[in-house]
Amino acid sequence: VTDSDEGFRTLGDLEAAARRKLTDPLWDLVEGGAGEERTVEANRAAFRRYALRPRAFADVSSVDLAAPILGTSFDAPFFVAPTAYQGSIHPDGEVATARAAAAAHVLSVFSTVSTLPLERIAGDAPAFPRWFQLYLQPDFSATEELVRRAEAVGFTAIVLTTDVPVLGSRDRQYRSGLAIDRAVPFGNGSKVIIAARHPTAHGATYRLPPPADATWEIVDRVRALTRLPLLIKGVLTAADARQAIVHGAKGIVVSNHGGRQLDGARATLDALPEVVDAVGTHAEVYLDGGVRRGSDILIALALGARAVGIGRPILWALATGGEAGVARYFELLKMELAISMAIAGRRSIAEIDRTLVERVSAAPS
Amino acid sequence: VTDSDEGFRTLGDLEAAARRKLTDPLWDLVEGGAGEERTVEANRAAFRRYALRPRAFADVSSVDLAAPILGTSFDAPFFVAPTAYQGSIHPDGEVATARAAAAAHVLSVFSTVSTLPLERIAGDAPAFPRWFQLYLQPDFSATEELVRRAEAVGFTAIVLTTDVPVLGSRDRQYRSGLAIDRAVPFGNGSKVIIAARHPTAHGATYRLPPPADATWEIVDRVRALTRLPLLIKGVLTAADARQAIVHGAKGIVVSNHGGRQLDGARATLDALPEVVDAVGTHAEVYLDGGVRRGSDILIALALGARAVGIGRPILWALATGGEAGVARYFELLKMELAISMAIAGRRSIAEIDRTLVERVSAAPS
Amino acid sequence: VTDSDEGFRTLGDLEAAARRKLTDPLWDLVEGGAGEERTVEANRAAFRRYALRPRAFADVSSVDLAAPILGTSFDAPFFVAPTAYQGSIHPDGEVATARAAAAAHVLSVFSTVSTLPLERIAGDAPAFPRWFQLYLQPDFSATEELVRRAEAVGFTAIVLTTDVPVLGSRDRQYRSGLAIDRAVPFGNGSKVIIAARHPTAHGATYRLPPPADATWEIVDRVRALTRLPLLIKGVLTAADARQAIVHGAKGIVVSNHGGRQLDGARATLDALPEVVDAVGTHAEVYLDGGVRRGSDILIALALGARAVGIGRPILWALATGGEAGVARYFELLKMELAISMAIAGRRSIAEIDRTLVERVSAAPS
Amino acid sequence: VTDSDEGFRTLGDLEAAARRKLTDPLWDLVEGGAGEERTVEANRAAFRRYALRPRAFADVSSVDLAAPILGTSFDAPFFVAPTAYQGSIHPDGEVATARAAAAAHVLSVFSTVSTLPLERIAGDAPAFPRWFQLYLQPDFSATEELVRRAEAVGFTAIVLTTDVPVLGSRDRQYRSGLAIDRAVPFGNGSKVIIAARHPTAHGATYRLPPPADATWEIVDRVRALTRLPLLIKGVLTAADARQAIVHGAKGIVVSNHGGRQLDGARATLDALPEVVDAVGTHAEVYLDGGVRRGSDILIALALGARAVGIGRPILWALATGGEAGVARYFELLKMELAISMAIAGRRSIAEIDRTLVERVSAAPS
Repeated sequence: VTDSDEGFRTLGDLEAAARRKLTDPLWDLVEGGAGEERTVEANRAAFRRYALRPRAFADVSSVDLAAPILGTSFDAPFFVAPTAYQGSIHPDGEVATARAAAAAHVLSVFSTVSTLPLERIAGDAPAFPRWFQLYLQPDFSATEELVRRAEAVGFTAIVLTTDVPVLGSRDRQYRSGLAIDRAVPFGNGSKVIIAARHPTAHGATYRLPPPADATWEIVDRVRALTRLPLLIKGVLTAADARQAIVHGAKGIVVSNHGGRQLDGARATLDALPEVVDAVGTHAEVYLDGGVRRGSDILIALALGARAVGIGRPILWALATGGEAGVARYFELLKMELAISMAIAGRRSIAEIDRTLVERVSAAPS
Repeated sequence: VTDSDEGFRTLGDLEAAARRKLTDPLWDLVEGGAGEERTVEANRAAFRRYALRPRAFADVSSVDLAAPILGTSFDAPFFVAPTAYQGSIHPDGEVATARAAAAAHVLSVFSTVSTLPLERIAGDAPAFPRWFQLYLQPDFSATEELVRRAEAVGFTAIVLTTDVPVLGSRDRQYRSGLAIDRAVPFGNGSKVIIAARHPTAHGATYRLPPPADATWEIVDRVRALTRLPLLIKGVLTAADARQAIVHGAKGIVVSNHGGRQLDGARATLDALPEVVDAVGTHAEVYLDGGVRRGSDILIALALGARAVGIGRPILWALATGGEAGVARYFELLKMELAISMAIAGRRSIAEIDRTLVERVSAAPS
Repeated sequence: VTDSDEGFRTLGDLEAAARRKLTDPLWDLVEGGAGEERTVEANRAAFRRYALRPRAFADVSSVDLAAPILGTSFDAPFFVAPTAYQGSIHPDGEVATARAAAAAHVLSVFSTVSTLPLERIAGDAPAFPRWFQLYLQPDFSATEELVRRAEAVGFTAIVLTTDVPVLGSRDRQYRSGLAIDRAVPFGNGSKVIIAARHPTAHGATYRLPPPADATWEIVDRVRALTRLPLLIKGVLTAADARQAIVHGAKGIVVSNHGGRQLDGARATLDALPEVVDAVGTHAEVYLDGGVRRGSDILIALALGARAVGIGRPILWALATGGEAGVARYFELLKMELAISMAIAGRRSIAEIDRTLVERVSAAPS
Repeated sequence: VTDSDEGFRTLGDLEAAARRKLTDPLWDLVEGGAGEERTVEANRAAFRRYALRPRAFADVSSVDLAAPILGTSFDAPFFVAPTAYQGSIHPDGEVATARAAAAAHVLSVFSTVSTLPLERIAGDAPAFPRWFQLYLQPDFSATEELVRRAEAVGFTAIVLTTDVPVLGSRDRQYRSGLAIDRAVPFGNGSKVIIAARHPTAHGATYRLPPPADATWEIVDRVRALTRLPLLIKGVLTAADARQAIVHGAKGIVVSNHGGRQLDGARATLDALPEVVDAVGTHAEVYLDGGVRRGSDILIALALGARAVGIGRPILWALATGGEAGVARYFELLKMELAISMAIAGRRSIAEIDRTLVERVSAAPS
């Protein structure tokens, strides 16, 4: 690990370094969650309820971060979670992220509402497995077109998001003004949307346009569009995990959208064990939400996640220095994970099992 | 949701917007609770002990907030909790609230100690179901007169408050001076009271004038005055809930008077499950205390409340812009509730059941 | 409750009012506990783990605070806990406290290390039951003399303190200088001591002079000195409570010396239930430590205390206005207790039972 | 306890006094932990989850701190935990510590990476039992040489550290610059190391040089080098404790390296009971991490530790006044421990048993 010009020397410096780079509205866009941001905080707090139980003298001369994800081996058990509008954070936008991820042999997932077209992301970054996050579009043909475009340019899986039938109540964004996301171009076409901003009221009835009418059968329809494996993102219960399996999902991302959708939703780490139990060997389970440091990754993997998604920190890193910033972040996070695994006496991802963690109770005042 | 001149853009802005409008003594009157305000805080903290378990792909193209309350369908499962002296907050006082509630098809409850006479509230707002909150008066004939007046002008239920045999020890109000509530006119007559301010000491004995001598039989007496359904407000235990049922209550409001009466009283959300269990199908159960956001409503309803009362936020909204402020508040709260229901995968109030919530344990330090 | 010149309008104002009156070293003397003051905080935090379950419509036209303590009826279930050096807080010292207590028909307990002689306390205040707190003296004849003097001037019980074989490590006092307690005259004689300030080291052995050699037999010896009932103060476990009973104690004060002796000692409220269970009907159980408001008294009594001792708040009140300050404090605390009992639906001390309280769990972050 | 020129009057003043003496980078070196310093905080928070149950009238005229550790009687049940680079804190470095410890009849443990050679430590301080903390060296012959040198000059035990196959991610040190530990001379030879600073990445594989390849058999090899008893430091689980016993350890130090290695590792106090249970009478168990005050020592001993190591406070004391500072610290800590034992009614270390402590639950908000 060498010194860097990217503005952060350690993982602990990253958030502050990014804060210095971004305007207030952009910062609110990146950091803000829904409502009172209870779930944003809960995601982080959940990690503090677990502690690590290291193992001594375990011959850690070689620590292997290689992580098999849907049959591909990546160089780390973490991936770039899909986040919108990366071009508003840094002019190179998603291409910077894609290049850094490919160089680091790290999986990356790109959002339907990327600033750059998915063809640019695929074309301007080296060939490397990456996934396409799919928001269902009002018109299924538009959904279909997105899937076909992603497949055509080499994306290797489709990650269908379930938790945005409508945008969450994002107080912080509303307070700082909505100019940002109105101003940012949607790389995948001006008609592409995340979801309706809000329902239309008719007395006590609030109507939401398609695809808010989606049921689990939509998963079958999307799956039929492509030979690519389909994953479901936004699962927080065993019941939904079982539905995802029934409808052919190869992977499940335990996620609450970084606390940006339903304020008060359970922390993803709290949801993880029941989803892992429900899924068994029928699919792979991932988690995003609140992952910041090597120890967080150890905890999530010990509780059964195969890999974890990184959201806001990627945007922070992007803000500090574009591709170089993200590259630096991967370098530091991998190194910290390797160091943590070595001290924990775990030589490979497979050795990170349930015996590594325990719950901790709260201390009085 | 459009921008607004009422001074708050989101629900999260409301309290601060109101603070800017009110003088210090008025603010203390609105915010203050009894003693050290442990119960005020406890009401809020109780909601943080629950998290939400959303359901995906549930066809939320239509989300229905319609809430049946005592056989009437309202457009939301929340109502205006009774609060005193609304005229001190805004010159239009209770009429502003009544108009906004009627326009929003939201139930409202008005206090015995309203600034305006109940006839004005009923007469200057459109015809719409609203309830009258009743403080027992020292002389039962005065109680009777209030009930008859309320019935005469169309109030549709009587909500009898149980938890004010005497005013609580409201430190914050006492510190900022008592001038406010002395100066405010009592709309329903200069002899109408909430309760004695404090007992009269005779050695170790502290005497309280009627109606502090009330027993549960008073409920029968009040019930006999009117054909309107009677509700009991201020219940915090299963035992009292059973008493209310025995004495003919059609509804029970789990309430600790917003933490303004007995400092240290249990949080209403902590009391709700045992009351719901005790009541079964014999009456409807409501809750007030600490409800601020859409997620709070989901939690309370999931734990068995049929609807929730909103206290301080109505006063905040009234302060920001009178009727328009309250209207704006209803608009935002309904919208947030609809959005939260959609993301939670619940299409109607009936679908908000116990499976939506779980308890969360505290994190270390 | 009338306005007052004593500098505090409510119980919540009292501490700050006292702070303004006292110099820094005196404040540290009053407030300071042992070590990191964990036990000082724990005493208070323990009350927050309980909430109150009020009862409605209980005919509270008359609320009786009368509290039988060792067969005498006082006007409140609280008493003045013994505190040292009251003359350093106000020139009238213990006489001010004794007068206010007698006027309020409240039990008071005076310390061996009072600033005024116990004869002055008894002589300058009206005849009224009051207890003498006894520190064992190095020479048993000095202990005997104190007991005989107390009995001679009409003290009605002896409260033997167990938890000061040596002074605790009172960081805050040491930091602000020890001048205060050196300068204050000991009313009961210049040779009277609380305890050795610290042991004398001889290698690994730390010697403490008598009475640190006391065993439970000392209780028998003290009891034999007097016809007055003997109480034991400083009990925190069932085992010690049983010892106290075996050795003839008529009462037990669950106390950790206000957190001034063993930092880390359990909160008194946490100790109370096991002591109450162990003692049964063999003696009366009292508690001091952290009692500030009417709700605290309700909680302690509900958990089995017959009465509670008030320590620091009496000194605060004394600082604000001597006898008038203490009188005002009693007035406010009794009134708040009566109000709280009325709202809780408890008409007498006997009605404050275990059903009034419940434990509350902590909320996340 | 007399006043002192060492800059701290009480144990509670020590940290601030040290802060005033040290530069920012040195302070970060002393205080800093790994990552977000969760484990640094957890070590302290764990003590707050226990409270003490004192015993009254136990004849504490003589309190004996004598603590048998590996068959030698010391004057206190605490010891100097090994810390690196003491010469950077005070010019007299480890010799100051060794002299103060010998004078106080307190066990001290010196680090492989002392600023002074172990021969100087042994030679310039009076003959007294002290232990040598051993970091395995890349070349086993270098490890062997260190052991032989320690034995030759009279160190009485070897404490083999297990938790540093690589340095932890010490954000705070990295932020304040690494100049300090590069500039400090390594007393035991310029080639002596703690561990590799970080692994070398080869794709997903992170390589660590020897001795990161150590397995538990290394313990047998080290043990074979010397007739001195061997202890294992850095154990946090029953499984590792059993390994240590199987491989001949005479003592086990429950330690997480003061939170400087694996951020998120469990608190040592949380690990202690299971280690004590696993070890039984096969070895002695010690603990370090978060011990600051007399009460902490009581808690750790009550949970089964035979003695506790003191880390950062020794460096604080060294900073305030070299040997005199450490001497003063020992004086205060012994005195506080003796006082605490006296009030707790425990006359000897043997009397500090499980009945002295209880767990405490957290309070709401």
